[in-house]
Amino acid sequence: MLYTPAVARLVEELSKLPGVGPKTAQRLAFHLLKVPEEEARSLAEAILDAREKVAYCRRCFNFAQEELCEFCRDGRRDPSLVCVVERPQDIVAVEKTGEFRGLYHVLGGAISPIDGIGPEELRIRELLERVRREGIREVIVATNPRVEGEATAMYLANLLKPLGVRTTRIASGLPVGGDLEYADEVTLGRALRGRLEI
Amino acid sequence: MLYTPAVARLVEELSKLPGVGPKTAQRLAFHLLKVPEEEARSLAEAILDAREKVAYCRRCFNFAQEELCEFCRDGRRDPSLVCVVERPQDIVAVEKTGEFRGLYHVLGGAISPIDGIGPEELRIRELLERVRREGIREVIVATNPRVEGEATAMYLANLLKPLGVRTTRIASGLPVGGDLEYADEVTLGRALRGRLEI
Repeated sequence: MLYTPAVARLVEELSKLPGVGPKTAQRLAFHLLKVPEEEARSLAEAILDAREKVAYCRRCFNFAQEELCEFCRDGRRDPSLVCVVERPQDIVAVEKTGEFRGLYHVLGGAISPIDGIGPEELRIRELLERVRREGIREVIVATNPRVEGEATAMYLANLLKPLGVRTTRIASGLPVGGDLEYADEVTLGRALRGRLEI
Repeated sequence: MLYTPAVARLVEELSKLPGVGPKTAQRLAFHLLKVPEEEARSLAEAILDAREKVAYCRRCFNFAQEELCEFCRDGRRDPSLVCVVERPQDIVAVEKTGEFRGLYHVLGGAISPIDGIGPEELRIRELLERVRREGIREVIVATNPRVEGEATAMYLANLLKPLGVRTTRIASGLPVGGDLEYADEVTLGRALRGRLEI
């Protein structure tokens, strides 16, 4: 027995976190044992508190502490423009750009038959309802530019267009600061097809 | 505001962990919001439980749930042989070798004037008392082979030798599987000076 039972349990729980292997779990556990008790307690309470208070926004399925999330409650945002993302953390990424002032819709993932995720597992029905009810002008599909995200975008476009709503997809291309020499050919091909007038 | 308050607090608490930057903290927070509530609760409880139950071993200052740690309570270990380490996690590293069947003594760090850690901040007095009282035959100094650990080892040797106890230092040299070409010259120099008959 390398650890006393309470430490062994802590290491085990920490090693369930994503990207945390046994070595990191041990480092984190010993850190939590060494810091002032208040600091360790704060972390534990933040976990419990978040799980107690945070649920999904009734409208867009972002994380929310009230019925509606920050964005859905913000009257200054444009409700006719909706950005569809796979997960709540993707909202954080879009917000950081400062380029978007509409609302969001979190699908809860992307279509991936291999993982058993079909359209029914995602909040697609709820998106279509929003489009019908909320007078949405444009849906920007910002699923990840991978196979699953692209398939989901195509699937959504086929459902949304008949509703008469403008449906757009975020651009794929070279990252800013990138280098043609090191770009993969699929990305560079997309960048060429998606070229814009200058 | 990128996150709802309870999520913001969780991200902030997680980012206080060593090696966890804001991006990782966000990933961990969203993970903890997504997993079954029971899993998140288990982690929080493991933290609280560890801080409640775990204190220091009265004899060797390893982490312990009782007065004495696992090793100090284990009658099959040789109490005349003591391995001195800087931190409790160093005990785990020594134990994993399977080469040591004695007891430990955790200093709580190494002498480092730049960090304000002098000999008084470490459990050196307690080590000397153990040597006087417990009939210790050999003290193996296994502080880290860095400047602070080496200085601490020298300091301990000067105090321990007059007490008539054999004082040894773990070997420095090339790591097993290492390569002379890539070894730094200090390590290779140590390996040469520490050569053994074959």
